[in-house]
Amino acid sequence: MSKNDNHERSAVSVIGLGQMGTRLAQAFLAAGHTTTVWNRTAAKADALVVQGAVRAATVEAAVAASPLVVVCLPDYPTVRDLLGPVAESLRGRALVNLTFGTPEDAATMAGWVAGHGADYLDGAMMALPETVATPEGFFLYSGSQHAFTTHRRDLEVMAPAHYFGTKAGSAEIHDLALLGTGYAALTGFLHAAALLDVVGTTPEVFAPLAAQWLRGMAEFLPELAREAGSSEYTNAVSTVDMNRAGVDSLIQLSKANGIAAAVHEPLKALLDRRSADGHGQDSFSSVYELLRSRALGGDERGTRIG
Amino acid sequence: MSKNDNHERSAVSVIGLGQMGTRLAQAFLAAGHTTTVWNRTAAKADALVVQGAVRAATVEAAVAASPLVVVCLPDYPTVRDLLGPVAESLRGRALVNLTFGTPEDAATMAGWVAGHGADYLDGAMMALPETVATPEGFFLYSGSQHAFTTHRRDLEVMAPAHYFGTKAGSAEIHDLALLGTGYAALTGFLHAAALLDVVGTTPEVFAPLAAQWLRGMAEFLPELAREAGSSEYTNAVSTVDMNRAGVDSLIQLSKANGIAAAVHEPLKALLDRRSADGHGQDSFSSVYELLRSRALGGDERGTRIG
Repeated sequence: MSKNDNHERSAVSVIGLGQMGTRLAQAFLAAGHTTTVWNRTAAKADALVVQGAVRAATVEAAVAASPLVVVCLPDYPTVRDLLGPVAESLRGRALVNLTFGTPEDAATMAGWVAGHGADYLDGAMMALPETVATPEGFFLYSGSQHAFTTHRRDLEVMAPAHYFGTKAGSAEIHDLALLGTGYAALTGFLHAAALLDVVGTTPEVFAPLAAQWLRGMAEFLPELAREAGSSEYTNAVSTVDMNRAGVDSLIQLSKANGIAAAVHEPLKALLDRRSADGHGQDSFSSVYELLRSRALGGDERGTRIG
Repeated sequence: MSKNDNHERSAVSVIGLGQMGTRLAQAFLAAGHTTTVWNRTAAKADALVVQGAVRAATVEAAVAASPLVVVCLPDYPTVRDLLGPVAESLRGRALVNLTFGTPEDAATMAGWVAGHGADYLDGAMMALPETVATPEGFFLYSGSQHAFTTHRRDLEVMAPAHYFGTKAGSAEIHDLALLGTGYAALTGFLHAAALLDVVGTTPEVFAPLAAQWLRGMAEFLPELAREAGSSEYTNAVSTVDMNRAGVDSLIQLSKANGIAAAVHEPLKALLDRRSADGHGQDSFSSVYELLRSRALGGDERGTRIG
């Protein structure tokens, strides 16, 4: 008997049946969970009911139906509007809120839910509808450790689950960090595509090469992380000065071809600063020291949010 | 009989036996090519000779030994210093220069080589020593179409080969474009890692998640490319305004946690501008229109380099 067989599947309610909510409910159904569903526009539940889901007549009934309540709505105000009037029915349940919001949204919601005697887990879905319940998607969680431990196996029906501590805002912070990594990559790609278009290579021709290159960069992240995590940059394969020359060539080439180069100026500034500080032979990854020092941000130090 | 069996392997000379040059020579030897090698420090050829390579006593002898001459040196000045005195021996050969340089370096070299009656191919190695002769690495070429067509099968012993036209600088431009895509991704990762370190997640813990996310972004590039290539942004899954809010949250969160946010400011400016221009519901990829218009670069228009 495998571990999975030993686990008793929790009944689960899914509130919010947009594209993602629908896929989550389908994943629970496919894994054999008793699955109750609710959506403001009730017709969105029809197909799921045909697939075996139980339709709840009200939000309150949906919350009452299961010890595990998964919420997947467009935004936090919608969550508050829907759950506010039925707060008392939350008592004793685990509320898993997968709605996208800020760390503050999550922290506020966690306090409110705890005040009504429920466990709160905030979640961030690093997945598309088509990567739910596949190894390609993954979900981040923070908040109630008890809820995570109790329901981990249930949650992993949706996607591999990663837990980042009891501060409810932490999952959203990790979500934003991943979005930022992705934004940077996509912006770099679009800049490069604009440059190549000038010399006759279309974005469509460039995309598969850039995708292969990005996959190579992904392989490289653990090495960068080891250097950054240990502040040990002297065993450099790819130095600040080498890449400074590369970024500079890229900026000059962009300008010469009439392409905006501003997206690469911050990295140029970071590399210039490292070089000027005598770290030109350190690893490229050593710009990490500047990123975390605010040295080039001109930012005002505020309150930590976590 | 397969196509490969029909192809007569060219004898090849490899000049420059650093880490990459050595791997290239090994790949040719493994594929059954008569392989002549030369390096300024002759001892670097010793292991290759044991593996079956022919040692050339001089650069001139190395060039004379094979119709296909592959050069892999630290920089273009070194290439010029070594080949300058033996220019006459180049006549009738195909010179494939894999040395990293600028598009101008390549264009100048192409003119010089053509003046001595040889075909010139400029190449850029998108590979690490360990990904030579594996599907993970790939090489870019531009310059002599005749040389590329004649030797394509030979060149693909080193890595899959992509040809970008007769302008010798084109391969270096594509190299810089790919480097730029990678730089952006790595900078985004290091920024995100700095942010998460403040809330207690180490770079080492973050790296595998970020790698998975980046691989997901790589899958997404063809879709972005289709939108950018067609200037058709209205069928948006992920809009300018949605991502503008995300980037803004990320910048605010960075500042609140004492992390430099400058690396994301250019994207913020691009998204703000698209939104202000009435394109808030267009796809995120529509920032491409600004990147190629120099609208936010403040750059001076110069001469196209290709």
